[in-house]
Amino acid sequence: MSAEVREILDKARAEGRTALTAPEGKLVCDAYGIATPGEGLATSADHAVELATSIGFPVVLKIVSPDILHKTEAGGVLVGVGSAEAVRAGYDQIIANAQAYDAGAVIDGVQVQQMVGGGHEVIIGAVTDPTFGKVVAFGLGGTLVEVLKDVTFRLAPLTVHDSLAMLDDIKAAEVLRGARGAAPADRAALSTMIERVGALVADFPEIAEVDLNPVFASANGAVAADVRIILSAEAPVETPRIPRDEILAKMNRIFHPRAVAVIGASGETGKIGNSVMRNLINGGFRGNIYPINPKSSEILGLPAYPSIADVPGEIDVAVFAIPAAFVPAALEAAGEKGVAGAIMIPSGFAETGNVEGQQEIVEIARKHGVRMLGPNIYGYYYTPENLCATFCTPYDVRGNVALTSQSGGIGMAILGFSRTTRMGVSAIVGVGNKADVDEDDLLTFFEQDDNTKCVAMHLEDLKDGRGFVEAVQRVVKEKPVIVLKAGRTAMGARAAGSHTGALAGDDKVYDDILRHAGVVRAPGLNDMLEYARSLPIMPTPQGENVVIITGAGGSGVLLSDACVDNGLTLMEIPPDLDEAFRAYIPPFGAAGNPIDITGGEPPSTYENTLRLGLTDPRIHALVLGYWHTIVTPPMVFAELVARVVAEERAKGNHKPVVASLAGDTEVEEACEYLFDHGVVAYPYTTEKPVAVLGAKYRWARAAGLMPG
Amino acid sequence: MSAEVREILDKARAEGRTALTAPEGKLVCDAYGIATPGEGLATSADHAVELATSIGFPVVLKIVSPDILHKTEAGGVLVGVGSAEAVRAGYDQIIANAQAYDAGAVIDGVQVQQMVGGGHEVIIGAVTDPTFGKVVAFGLGGTLVEVLKDVTFRLAPLTVHDSLAMLDDIKAAEVLRGARGAAPADRAALSTMIERVGALVADFPEIAEVDLNPVFASANGAVAADVRIILSAEAPVETPRIPRDEILAKMNRIFHPRAVAVIGASGETGKIGNSVMRNLINGGFRGNIYPINPKSSEILGLPAYPSIADVPGEIDVAVFAIPAAFVPAALEAAGEKGVAGAIMIPSGFAETGNVEGQQEIVEIARKHGVRMLGPNIYGYYYTPENLCATFCTPYDVRGNVALTSQSGGIGMAILGFSRTTRMGVSAIVGVGNKADVDEDDLLTFFEQDDNTKCVAMHLEDLKDGRGFVEAVQRVVKEKPVIVLKAGRTAMGARAAGSHTGALAGDDKVYDDILRHAGVVRAPGLNDMLEYARSLPIMPTPQGENVVIITGAGGSGVLLSDACVDNGLTLMEIPPDLDEAFRAYIPPFGAAGNPIDITGGEPPSTYENTLRLGLTDPRIHALVLGYWHTIVTPPMVFAELVARVVAEERAKGNHKPVVASLAGDTEVEEACEYLFDHGVVAYPYTTEKPVAVLGAKYRWARAAGLMPG
Repeated sequence: MSAEVREILDKARAEGRTALTAPEGKLVCDAYGIATPGEGLATSADHAVELATSIGFPVVLKIVSPDILHKTEAGGVLVGVGSAEAVRAGYDQIIANAQAYDAGAVIDGVQVQQMVGGGHEVIIGAVTDPTFGKVVAFGLGGTLVEVLKDVTFRLAPLTVHDSLAMLDDIKAAEVLRGARGAAPADRAALSTMIERVGALVADFPEIAEVDLNPVFASANGAVAADVRIILSAEAPVETPRIPRDEILAKMNRIFHPRAVAVIGASGETGKIGNSVMRNLINGGFRGNIYPINPKSSEILGLPAYPSIADVPGEIDVAVFAIPAAFVPAALEAAGEKGVAGAIMIPSGFAETGNVEGQQEIVEIARKHGVRMLGPNIYGYYYTPENLCATFCTPYDVRGNVALTSQSGGIGMAILGFSRTTRMGVSAIVGVGNKADVDEDDLLTFFEQDDNTKCVAMHLEDLKDGRGFVEAVQRVVKEKPVIVLKAGRTAMGARAAGSHTGALAGDDKVYDDILRHAGVVRAPGLNDMLEYARSLPIMPTPQGENVVIITGAGGSGVLLSDACVDNGLTLMEIPPDLDEAFRAYIPPFGAAGNPIDITGGEPPSTYENTLRLGLTDPRIHALVLGYWHTIVTPPMVFAELVARVVAEERAKGNHKPVVASLAGDTEVEEACEYLFDHGVVAYPYTTEKPVAVLGAKYRWARAAGLMPG
Repeated sequence: MSAEVREILDKARAEGRTALTAPEGKLVCDAYGIATPGEGLATSADHAVELATSIGFPVVLKIVSPDILHKTEAGGVLVGVGSAEAVRAGYDQIIANAQAYDAGAVIDGVQVQQMVGGGHEVIIGAVTDPTFGKVVAFGLGGTLVEVLKDVTFRLAPLTVHDSLAMLDDIKAAEVLRGARGAAPADRAALSTMIERVGALVADFPEIAEVDLNPVFASANGAVAADVRIILSAEAPVETPRIPRDEILAKMNRIFHPRAVAVIGASGETGKIGNSVMRNLINGGFRGNIYPINPKSSEILGLPAYPSIADVPGEIDVAVFAIPAAFVPAALEAAGEKGVAGAIMIPSGFAETGNVEGQQEIVEIARKHGVRMLGPNIYGYYYTPENLCATFCTPYDVRGNVALTSQSGGIGMAILGFSRTTRMGVSAIVGVGNKADVDEDDLLTFFEQDDNTKCVAMHLEDLKDGRGFVEAVQRVVKEKPVIVLKAGRTAMGARAAGSHTGALAGDDKVYDDILRHAGVVRAPGLNDMLEYARSLPIMPTPQGENVVIITGAGGSGVLLSDACVDNGLTLMEIPPDLDEAFRAYIPPFGAAGNPIDITGGEPPSTYENTLRLGLTDPRIHALVLGYWHTIVTPPMVFAELVARVVAEERAKGNHKPVVASLAGDTEVEEACEYLFDHGVVAYPYTTEKPVAVLGAKYRWARAAGLMPG
């Protein structure tokens, strides 16, 4: 924290300004040890000459006026001014230009500045993102890079480690390292400058924007040649946080309820309150189920109550299946009853423009300490408790992946996909309007939920980007977090805006920050679903060496393409290992990597090479390319792979094995068999098995589970 | 053609040089009207001063020596030499450096050159690609762009239209148009220079490489500051071409045979010669089938012959199902019998290293005018003739897509995918080692084959890149050509090399040239298959306006993302149309684009909005997002969409309609129903339906079928 900066900001505020002047910007930089060019403010032509002489020629001259933000446009900038006479003439010229540009502008003088340049031109800045708050940006400077948008973002404040990583995170990173004979940039100076900008905006949240552009970085230092600092018009709002133990206390009651009430339960088929009742009963929920309906004494064989207040025992969860208009009173009653969770299925709130109605129920819930899921959701599933509190259909393939969706349509796609692929699921949760419970709360629960080993989330926005990042950073150490962020593109983001009323952040900011937090981002819906299905059944790789073993050379080429596309490393096979593989394959097969065992080989060739791949400790993951032949039919291949993988796992050889099966339709059954036996396998695609392996690697690296 | 250039090249050759000197390069440029800086060759320090004075200061000094290619490394370059004294000193310095670098170097003198710079720095060049021959390259210059590899390629020679398009084909194109206040580059001068480089290498194929780097392009002209021209060590080899009518005469006999002989036919189950016989018979082929086997008199109920020579009638196609060692004699006999096509299933040729054996059979085939498919293939299918000349299994879903594969494994994936999706196919063809028949021949056939409306090809290399481009350019005007080019990445290309022995070209060259030829490139195997399945059933869009109609807002956002990813334009809905859509949707639904009709709507809302989308002539394609509800179940949606689309097509409203279905597993059946009724539909994915629509658009644009 700096008293000088405090004073400068207060002065600007007092004068009703949101932009600092250049000299003020320089003082702020001085206070944070951000190097700027030697300079001074000249108030006369003589003074300018004096300053220029002391700084050294050539210099840059710039108008200083609180009323002129776009100096170049105003004819207020002269560069490369090389002599005393030129400085004198330039001073007069600039003042005249500024007066012509805006006759009423208050002119403080002309800034005389050390002429910098040479080395690398970069941009360092900070913005206030609506989702993530203070965010630091770094990119190469110049017109070209502005067009190519080669820039990276991180949350402020940040560490040395983070700021150094930013230097390598742009496409043109090689240039800063001195590619093609250029001098390398001073990485320490640049990363320090990034860090300090981060510290500045973290210390003074009222700073909305910082632009150091250009910064010139030579082999020995970095200088911010131009500084622009903008203050926010309003004071930033703190996002309220609920303590972790409070979240968990409620979430554990919501996911492990002893009793569930269905408000609006109905005996009439087709009603939502009927579907919810049926799903709870048919799904096999073993706790108490209390139908609430003033007009019935019994629903689906269970005694019904006119109000939740009339239920004799304690209730953990109330599922709402009544029109929006009746929700406030019913929620009030549920709150008084002491429920932990309100599952708010009804629509007709913020998504239809009824923002006040939503705010009303949020306040009721908050008053009673009730956590509310929704409104405008399909409900939620939690298979370890046989809990199907939804109006969809029961789901019973238990497993380790928890999925959430912000949209009901996407929730239905999750359900259909899960059912058809028999994906093992712990939970499927709709978050809808996210008026209360959001992804952070759910992550907090899934983090400590032993039934969940992997989390996949569809989201269009985040209410509290920093809260999400903190939760993710805790969870990913143990469990992958897959995110499908919708509204990735400018057009998509616009559609998100019209859908949820929430402003979707710029995607590059989301992308960098989520990746840095350790999220495995899915490029599309189907990718999210396939990652969710595959990641939990793959062991964590213990290193980067991927080996392709293929019966079809053609598949080998495509699998290699896919490995490169997914950031995987095709192992350079050492000579002894190459020889060991060659012993199993025909002389015209190709060892190396891919290992082409050639078509027409018997099961033993697949078995021998697979076993060698699983046992040799230098290999960390296997990609199999199968080619349907009479000699090794699909199910023979599937059974042998499942058997060998199981045998080697029993011996402690845990490695991810993924397979691409090329063949006639029998390969589909073979893939199902393999999936059921812990081997990820897909027919008619070389891309998918490698994409899911790539996702597993991205998580393992982010979680710090990869040696080296 | 230029006599001066001829003379310069001959002189270099005569002197045993493959690199031209800088003055020679300049003369070549002069002959082709390629602007270079003012300059002269100084042979003494005095001479250098004289030249510099006439050119104007500052100048650049460069060593001229046939023995020194890397001038900078040799200390042979001085830039910004600003005075007569400096030129004098510089001359001596450079000569001394060069002698120190290579004492034996012949030194012709020092080039004194106009100092150029400013404006935009670009690279224009030409290379000799192993697949495509002379190829022109254009990119932005400078270290940064070298790192970012922002460059584009075209076949040489090229037209004004092509060279202007190259300027827009790099990522940084905006920069040349004067983005962010930079001066725009002289597009006419740049495109002219690109064209002239193309003309130069086309006129003189012995020029292996041209590098104009950097070229400085201002608003008024472009100057090539450095010229490097390399000659090829050997004379280029012309690829022999078979005239189109000769190709067609043979191909038509191969795809419409009256009689097929199976050499190595067998009655023994499990033998390839047995599978081929069974497939021909069970597939329903109505021509004559002649089993050839010296040890049998009858096979599968058909009279067998000891040799093809013994068959009484004419034979169009001989399918080979015998070991490689017996092929030459049998092919000789087939050639004498006058077959048009030899379907060479046997492996054991170039793919196992037996290059000579392959060459031997190529020569036998050529001698007899037999076109040979393979060797090392699964055979081929042609459904209009019920022809299944393969050892796989029969295929009988007739349709309009022809698929080819270079790899047997990929061929099997094509077969399995086709069968499971009931894809309508005209032909599936294995090309294997491509010793004779290649993609060009097949394209020439499919071009005039009324049973084929779309061609999809898996390939790892092209024997004759230019022949392929010419064939594609003819075909795409009527029929999409989808290409899965394996070996896309550097690692993938290496694997291709080890697999086929063919050098896979650099992928960027392939990518630019194939795209420019009008190919729809598939990023992966599954994409190729889905494009092949979907493109033929979609009408050609008549304009760029795409509209999304969705029941799930969440799908709408993801579908918008996918539209942007696939280069599709979300229509800006005009007010009157917006109002017309609003009339059908709930007040809280969102018009605009996506049109969010909201969940829970009855079938009539889908029907009304879909019909409006199909009838309004300003809309050119529709993307539907369906959300499974009780009010509009999946099959109700599918039937209504199929009905409305059929009704509107009957009225002449032909527009592509693709659908993404989110829901429980019933959506799978709904998607099948929609596909069967001419509507592309996928469950659990928002990406695929939009990707195939994008592929259709890419083709329509390339084929020049889009207005405007």
